[in-house]
Parts: sequence; C-alpha cells; structure tokens
Amino acid sequence: MIHRTPDPALEARVQAAIDGKTKPVGSLGRIETLAAQIARLQGTLAPRADLCALTIFAGDHGIAVAGVSAFPQEVTRQMVGNFLAGGAAACVIAASLGIEVTVVDAGVAGEAIAHPALVLRRIGAGTQDFSVGPAMSSEDCARAIDAGRILGAEARGEAAAFGEMGIGNTASATMLAHKLTGLDLGILTGRGTGLDDAGLARKLTVLRKASARTADRLTGDEALREYGGFEIAMMAGAMIGAAEAGRLVLVDGFIATAAALVAETIVVGIRPALVFAHVSADAGHPPLLAQMRAEPLLNLEMRLGEGTGALLAWPLVQAAAAMLRDMASFASAQVSTRG
Amino acid sequence: MIHRTPDPALEARVQAAIDGKTKPVGSLGRIETLAAQIARLQGTLAPRADLCALTIFAGDHGIAVAGVSAFPQEVTRQMVGNFLAGGAAACVIAASLGIEVTVVDAGVAGEAIAHPALVLRRIGAGTQDFSVGPAMSSEDCARAIDAGRILGAEARGEAAAFGEMGIGNTASATMLAHKLTGLDLGILTGRGTGLDDAGLARKLTVLRKASARTADRLTGDEALREYGGFEIAMMAGAMIGAAEAGRLVLVDGFIATAAALVAETIVVGIRPALVFAHVSADAGHPPLLAQMRAEPLLNLEMRLGEGTGALLAWPLVQAAAAMLRDMASFASAQVSTRG
Repeated sequence: MIHRTPDPALEARVQAAIDGKTKPVGSLGRIETLAAQIARLQGTLAPRADLCALTIFAGDHGIAVAGVSAFPQEVTRQMVGNFLAGGAAACVIAASLGIEVTVVDAGVAGEAIAHPALVLRRIGAGTQDFSVGPAMSSEDCARAIDAGRILGAEARGEAAAFGEMGIGNTASATMLAHKLTGLDLGILTGRGTGLDDAGLARKLTVLRKASARTADRLTGDEALREYGGFEIAMMAGAMIGAAEAGRLVLVDGFIATAAALVAETIVVGIRPALVFAHVSADAGHPPLLAQMRAEPLLNLEMRLGEGTGALLAWPLVQAAAAMLRDMASFASAQVSTRG
Repeated sequence: MIHRTPDPALEARVQAAIDGKTKPVGSLGRIETLAAQIARLQGTLAPRADLCALTIFAGDHGIAVAGVSAFPQEVTRQMVGNFLAGGAAACVIAASLGIEVTVVDAGVAGEAIAHPALVLRRIGAGTQDFSVGPAMSSEDCARAIDAGRILGAEARGEAAAFGEMGIGNTASATMLAHKLTGLDLGILTGRGTGLDDAGLARKLTVLRKASARTADRLTGDEALREYGGFEIAMMAGAMIGAAEAGRLVLVDGFIATAAALVAETIVVGIRPALVFAHVSADAGHPPLLAQMRAEPLLNLEMRLGEGTGALLAWPLVQAAAAMLRDMASFASAQVSTRG
C-alpha cells in the first residue's frame, strides 16, 4: 500500500502559491490543477519534472485466434523489432520529446527475441484463449504484476509513461473494464486497430460469450487471470511500482486505462499519482474514463497505444511544474493585483 | 501576397507516406493532419520542427479607462518588466520547452521602458479610447503592421508563436471579431482577465456603444484602425511575415485568433501556415474559432494569453514532424499489414 500522510497545510500553501502567481486567478486552467497534483505528490512548492521514461510492454493474446483484431498476431513480434530499431511511433515521438524508451517482452508468442536492448520478463509465449478458459494462471498473473512493480519502481525520472503492444489487447482491456466497472460490453467494445462493422460484430459476439464464463463482477486479480494479458498485468504492476516510488504515472489510452483500473483495485491509494494523458478515439475509452471520474488532458483523436498519448502529456507536466516552481508572484514582481 | 504553387502530387505522396507508417491508418488522429500541414508548408516528406520562437507584443489601450478590465492599465507596463525578468507564465513555460522569448514594446503607455532586451517598436503611448473615436490613425496602423511583418519574417525557426499583453485588449479583440465576422457582441464578449457579472455587463454596454460609431461590417484595416491595438496590429503583421517566410504560425487564444482573422483579410493565403493551438476559456473564443472553421489542438481551459497556449502546441508540432520524417513504414520495418 501507499504510505501517504495527507498534509492539509501543504495543500493550502500550494493553492495560495498558484493563486499568487502573476496571472489572473485560474487562468492557466488544467495546467494549474496539474501543478497542484505534482506539488502534492512531491510534497513541495518547487516541484521538478526534468526526466520522464517510457516503458513499453509487449505480449500476445490467445484470444487473437478468435479474429478480434484487424492485424495478424505476428505483428506483435514484428513491432517489438520496430521498437528496438527506433522506427515505431512511440520511439520517434519520445525522441522528439527527449524521452528514453525501454521495451519489455512480457510474453510475446514464439521463441524469445534475442536483442541486447530488450528487457526479458517473459511470463509465457502469450496467454491462453480467454473465450474458452482463463487467460493465465494465478501464479503467472502474480509474477507479471511483481515484475512490473519492480520495473516501475526502478524507472528513472519524476514521471513514468507506460505503453503496450499486443495484437488482441483491446479485447482483453474491454473485458477487464467490463468485469470491474459493470459497463456494458456493447458500450466498451471498439474497433481496436481498425475492425470493420462485421469485425466489430464478431468481436462483440466473442466477448459476450467469454464474459458468460465467469461471474458478472470480478476483482482486479480475478479479471486479470481470466481475461488479462501479460503486458497488461505487468503494466498494472509497473503503475503501482512507479506510484509507490513517488513518480507521476502518465496513463495512455484505453488499454493503459484498463491497467490503471486494475492497479487501483490491487493497491488502494495510487490515484494521486495518475495523470490521465488523453482520451482515445477507441469507443470504450470515454465511458471508462467517465466511470473512473478521470479527466484526460488531451483529445487528439488518437488510438494507437504504445504510450503515444502518454508521451504527449509530458510537456504539459513540465510546463505545470515550471509554472509553480519558477513563476514570479504579484509580490515578487511588483505587479498590481486586480483593481 | 503569398506565392504558393499547389502541388497535388506532393499532397498525394504525403498522405501515402503517412498511411504507410507502422500504425493503423488514421490512428494518430490530429497528429497526422498536423504532419500533413507541415509537410505541405515545407514542401517535403521529411519536415523539420527543431526551433520555435515566441514573440510577445505589448501595448496599451485607451479603452481601458472605460473600465473594461479587472486589472488597472499599469499592469501592462509591469508585466513587460516581468517578461524581461523571465518571471511571467509565458517565460517559464517557454523555458520548459526550450523556446526563446522576445518582448516587443508595440505601444505601452508612458515613457519608453529602457531595457537592453526589449525590442522597441513603439507606435505610440497606447491607443485612443475607441468608445469615442478611432483607436489609431491609418498611418499608425500601417506602421504597426509593417513593423510586425518584418519581425515575423526575421523570427528564427520553423514555427513562430506569438503572444500579447495589453490591459483592455480582449475588448479590442472582441470588436475586431464582431466587425469582421458579424457575430453578436453578446456572444463574443467575455470576462477577460476576470470581470464579475457587473463588470461584464459594463463591458458589453461600452462595446455596444463603441460599435454604433461605425458601419456594421468593416475591412480588416478599418477594424484595426477603429478598434485595434498596436500590439494586435503588430501581431497580425508578424503572422503575415512569418507565413510569407514559410514558417508555421502557432495561434494562441482569443486575441491572437482575432489578429489571425485580421491578417487573413489583409493577405489572402496565409491559412495553410496557421496552427490553431488551443481553445481558451474566454467566452468569445469558441464561436470565433467556429466561424473561422478553425479546429484547435488543445483545450486546457486556459485564458491567460501571452502566447501560453501557442507554446503548448509546439511539442505536438515536433511530434508530428518527427512522425512523418522518422517513422518506419510497413515495408521498411517488414511489419505485416492488416490481415
């Protein structure tokens, strides 16, 4: 669990500091609330946001055989190669923002990929098909969470962004969201990487059948075991580890939000560390965010994953920290307050 | 005027390049449309976005005596000092993003401020009160536009962000938007830096009276002369100069959008250079953007000006350029396309 001593005195000082900056009260909107969150998390009126690291977790899904994705399963493995070569969207966007990327094999299908930069935390060669039985054993689920927790704790910087790659993993995230929130599968099920109408209908049929295997509502651990992915479980663990280490967690799109939802059920008290970076164009993301009372910073109609949305929130975090840390006050700058 | 040779072949190649990147088609949303805009403007499939500069124009407004702002006029001058000292919001946010800031005195009330870093382009010591007569002469208006045009052409980098400071300038921007678009003053008039209900009602009364002085619709030049500010006219000129030099123009909030509106009436063909950075919380901004068919990138409930919103769009521009320039294609990375 997170050890946090609420400090009402700090809270009041943070708000007073923000309101005393040389600008109309409230005029920096979400940048102000973000600054307050960072200050609260770091316990200071001079928060830092100098370094952010992105960790991408890759894993395969047995459910992919059921035809729930527009892309074939081999793409997970190919994209790991693309991440390692620096050619994927997350890599070039991270480079443009000065963010380092680490790629973790959480359980890609086939043999382990040999590459000096790839972090091997393989729980298995992909999960089982969750339409017919549990995706993973309780032991493997716990191993994935624990491995993630260590990686999240060890990540460098004041903020940790997490991304994922795994053909079929919007199906997995949809099931996690469904079993943890009770939101209907019809609302949560989207086109993922680009299913057409027939593909979307097939995906929904597969998920409704898979849902009938278990109770209407599950705990986070149960839902992960029944419907999760190794990369999602590891990301949930990493979010916990990063939050426990006092880092901000930049939450990406639908799949990362499902991981955050699971993480919140496993360890109570990580919410103050979570920054919901963006709302994706995937159908399930807006209702899931609303259910979690999470207000995303960006809406750029993105739906790629890999942490691309989380990355784009980092400059906002830096701006917010800089505002609180470095801006002059009306008093220090001798600027008149309102007449 | 802007000399631009439309190149349908480039347009098609840009879209093909974006669609061939290792991601589902369209999955980077607004980042993709932004990348296409940059590629079009620079005429290349390998666009650059390495450097952005912010220029802040400061000027005073005769209308400020009519009580249309929550802050006294002296704040314009004090804030120029705050910009020069690096303590204002735009300065610390720019610093967090690696963006250099230039401050221009376009016409602050009182004596000229002596500071080695301040760029003096003073057209006068503030405009005249536009509730009783024209804000400035035709000659001064032309001088302001021309001075801005040179500054915009000389700005360094692939993108130019422009900010403003001027107590009373939301009133000026409101009148420009009203006379150029025909949108009602009741829709366009907002609280600026933070007017209360009584202040808002007073501002609207002042503006309705000022509007009655002139014809219902005016040209950009006429509107600037009647109701503009030196900093707004200079910013409009700078937008033109930057666009003519092939730079992207990052358009900030309500006042900058009014300047862009004016600029578009003065020089036809600058729209391809404009990136509407954010929608502000000021009442008039959403209807003005809608009227201009402009789709802002960010909505962070900000309403500060100074270019703060424009600055925050720069990392998105960098990400978009990097995506098109550096991302692998399905072919180059040997990733399978959809099944």
